Amino acid sequence: MLAVGPVVSLDARRGVVVAEVARRTTPDQASEICERGAARAADLDRLGRRGRAAMLAAMAEALEARRAEIVSLADMETALGAGRLDGELTRTCAQLRFMAEVITDGAYLEAVLDHARQTVTGQQPDIRRMLQPLGLVAVFGASNFPLAFSVPGGDTASALAAGCPVVAKVHDAHPATSVACAEALREGAKRAGVDFPVVSLVFGEEAGVAVVKHSAVRAVGFTGSLKAGRYLFDIANQRPDPVPFYGELGALNPVVVGPAAAEARAGDIASGLATSYTLGVGQFCTKPGLVLLPEGSGGDAVRDLLAEAVRAMGPGLMLSERIAAAFVAGSTTLRELAGVRVVATCGVPDAGASAGWWGVPVVLEAGPGPMSEPMLQECFGPLIILQRYSGAAHLSELVKALEPALTATFHADAADEALLDGVLGQLARKVGRLVWNGYPTGLAVTWATHHGGPYPATTAPLHTSVGAAAIKRWLQPVSYQNFPSHLLPPELQDAAPGGVAVLRRVDSRLTLPAHS
Amino acid sequence: MLAVGPVVSLDARRGVVVAEVARRTTPDQASEICERGAARAADLDRLGRRGRAAMLAAMAEALEARRAEIVSLADMETALGAGRLDGELTRTCAQLRFMAEVITDGAYLEAVLDHARQTVTGQQPDIRRMLQPLGLVAVFGASNFPLAFSVPGGDTASALAAGCPVVAKVHDAHPATSVACAEALREGAKRAGVDFPVVSLVFGEEAGVAVVKHSAVRAVGFTGSLKAGRYLFDIANQRPDPVPFYGELGALNPVVVGPAAAEARAGDIASGLATSYTLGVGQFCTKPGLVLLPEGSGGDAVRDLLAEAVRAMGPGLMLSERIAAAFVAGSTTLRELAGVRVVATCGVPDAGASAGWWGVPVVLEAGPGPMSEPMLQECFGPLIILQRYSGAAHLSELVKALEPALTATFHADAADEALLDGVLGQLARKVGRLVWNGYPTGLAVTWATHHGGPYPATTAPLHTSVGAAAIKRWLQPVSYQNFPSHLLPPELQDAAPGGVAVLRRVDSRLTLPAHS
Repeated sequence: MLAVGPVVSLDARRGVVVAEVARRTTPDQASEICERGAARAADLDRLGRRGRAAMLAAMAEALEARRAEIVSLADMETALGAGRLDGELTRTCAQLRFMAEVITDGAYLEAVLDHARQTVTGQQPDIRRMLQPLGLVAVFGASNFPLAFSVPGGDTASALAAGCPVVAKVHDAHPATSVACAEALREGAKRAGVDFPVVSLVFGEEAGVAVVKHSAVRAVGFTGSLKAGRYLFDIANQRPDPVPFYGELGALNPVVVGPAAAEARAGDIASGLATSYTLGVGQFCTKPGLVLLPEGSGGDAVRDLLAEAVRAMGPGLMLSERIAAAFVAGSTTLRELAGVRVVATCGVPDAGASAGWWGVPVVLEAGPGPMSEPMLQECFGPLIILQRYSGAAHLSELVKALEPALTATFHADAADEALLDGVLGQLARKVGRLVWNGYPTGLAVTWATHHGGPYPATTAPLHTSVGAAAIKRWLQPVSYQNFPSHLLPPELQDAAPGGVAVLRRVDSRLTLPAHS
Repeated sequence: MLAVGPVVSLDARRGVVVAEVARRTTPDQASEICERGAARAADLDRLGRRGRAAMLAAMAEALEARRAEIVSLADMETALGAGRLDGELTRTCAQLRFMAEVITDGAYLEAVLDHARQTVTGQQPDIRRMLQPLGLVAVFGASNFPLAFSVPGGDTASALAAGCPVVAKVHDAHPATSVACAEALREGAKRAGVDFPVVSLVFGEEAGVAVVKHSAVRAVGFTGSLKAGRYLFDIANQRPDPVPFYGELGALNPVVVGPAAAEARAGDIASGLATSYTLGVGQFCTKPGLVLLPEGSGGDAVRDLLAEAVRAMGPGLMLSERIAAAFVAGSTTLRELAGVRVVATCGVPDAGASAGWWGVPVVLEAGPGPMSEPMLQECFGPLIILQRYSGAAHLSELVKALEPALTATFHADAADEALLDGVLGQLARKVGRLVWNGYPTGLAVTWATHHGGPYPATTAPLHTSVGAAAIKRWLQPVSYQNFPSHLLPPELQDAAPGGVAVLRRVDSRLTLPAHS
């Protein structure tokens, strides 16, 4: 990828260039952008939680004010459909407002006060601890969520909430959308009285690498492929001063169907699976990619009804030429594996269909042998593999072979619980979210959300990129020993001034703010 | 370092081999130990918080029961002195008991319950989240704390509390102490009814590397040098499946003295600094290594009184031949820098003194030019450098050049606050703990403790290796979506059964357990 040259906006339905949006950012320009961004960190911190909450709310309003334009641009660039993107914009605004709620609540600061006291190990000084912003952070937008996981998305929202300015690397698949969103964020900030830039953009892969390497960047958030994520993770860790790299890299997302559930409600499970794995043309990091299905009539029924549902579907337009090509390559590899057969595909596009990058949903079924390597990896797009199991021991063996993932899903009736007990424990160690009688696509943004998991689901198993805890990625603790009260952050002063009261632990005991 | 061969215990006062303690662990043996350890993870988890708290308390008792033997072994192997090591054993036991308190409290689980509800983005399912143990973890003992940061130390205590079995890499400088401690931990566990091994030992660097590479090891805790820590950090990150590496690597730990404080109490500051930087023969990761001292009479007085105090001291025995040699090399480099002069050293050991590895305390003063590279790095041992500053701008420039550290210390009177305001803000971003009118050595183990900082102070700026939050390093979140109550961990059930009540966030609101 060249450092110079135009960044173009493509019409994903026609596969043609519509406009030049920007020039690729050179490494020198990226470096300047990082330095300017870092210089704003103290100002953003000084805004305080109240000031930043107001800014986030104003940003949400500004995005909504440009809803029609942003949705239309995003639909053109991604072909995801206006309905879906309208919902994604609503979600993006909800994320910004939710992060305002998280910082207003303030428990995320983990404020602790220990007054001086005598202990078995001697006199203990007065010590007080809380989390503070890391400084400038980098955010890499994802191809498949041009809004909710891109420039105005969850990484940006949580970083700004924490008090960290953002340099956002724009995804090549939706540059015009990104520029419009960045403008909206700036307008919102301005309306909230924040007249300095808190989100800057860089374009192109070389600029992205320069940003990850830049000493002013204190952490990186990334949503994307295993390959690109690992590449940047390695760069972040090979810096003279390594910094945290929070990569959310996608996953196989296994589904386990119990025999009783399969017998009792094969139709519901099959139609739910068909919808879930083809949602957004299978371009979700939470797409269910593998179904462990019991041998016998219940499992056969799920398979046959799933096939029927898929045959009735149409193909979908994928996000980009590269993604569509990778899907064709990946699905071809899987189809050609020994023992794997095609259970169903939907029809291919008409000869008269638009020229975009089509993805054709497919259902595969593997043979009885052990699962081969390609089956254990994510195939990004509308493909699902069925693997039959003969009983608890076989199921446990199959689950043992799985790599960590973002989610694991169970379809089970009461009669299945004994059979599933072992694999439930196994999977609870391997995935970030366990779903019961539901589907992994569709991820709520709330206090209890965890969107993560051990590698390769993410590069940081303690962290989430969605939900309240996402803010933790952009913070670091500091302890104050024997500090005079007036030099402490307000939240750490004995009598925390009105309006800053938060959950605190004072001399070992948790204390809630009065308003709770 | 060879994979085979004996691991010997040395008498640090005489510099001679006393006994063969073990054989170096081969990589194959290390692999077997990791697999056996990982197989115990589920059992340790099943013990529950109450079971693990009892186990930790029994471990502390067992260590105390062998106090005389352990202190004597540690004193022989480290020459740190029986008094200091007796205190360190007390601290080690206090850490184990404190971790029992942390898990009994249970807030560390970050339990969150969100019941199903309607939101702007649609129907939100029931989601519940909490932290769970990572699995087997590795701990690398430190040379300078044979108890509190080694086999029975804070990393082990917090990992066991979290529910993670430990494979501990024994430090070459105190193998006999480590074996005795491991026995005590095992005895304690047994007395608490835990009849499976929860802490295993490996010996030798090759085994240490094998452990960091082993797929069953889910995280690594390390306290030691920047060089060794970075080497292992790189290995952990270059694994096919990278795992978190929590390295605490030491630091320069700057001290800033304000002009008014220097004028008002030069004697107190000088004698405090002399004690702090020579404590444990300067072998503390929190040793103050650099003092930014005002030009003029106050600063002169601090310097001269510090010199006087040091001249009156004797030399001390260092932990090992390698550490003593590194100290000599490091201090020689610093002394020979342009503009640096020796302000004071204490006397060298008598000709008739024991044959151990002597460290001779030294005070250096740098010239007015910018600080050179070697001055900005930790010199492990009893050495402190004074750097004079002419005013606020010069001070800020000096602080800007500093690398991140574990601590920063201020000696200031009210009249100094305006001058120090700028650098206080700068240093709050660069260090884990800010100390006011005190000394950085001596670190309380409590709820508010943060012992960390950005690289090179640590490899994980969000984390601490000391204090309540140290447990977070060994945990990962999991979310349960639409799960039947009886399949949830007790802490996530609506009516948490008696005895498991913890701080929870339920439908956005924090709720304290009834007993709080």
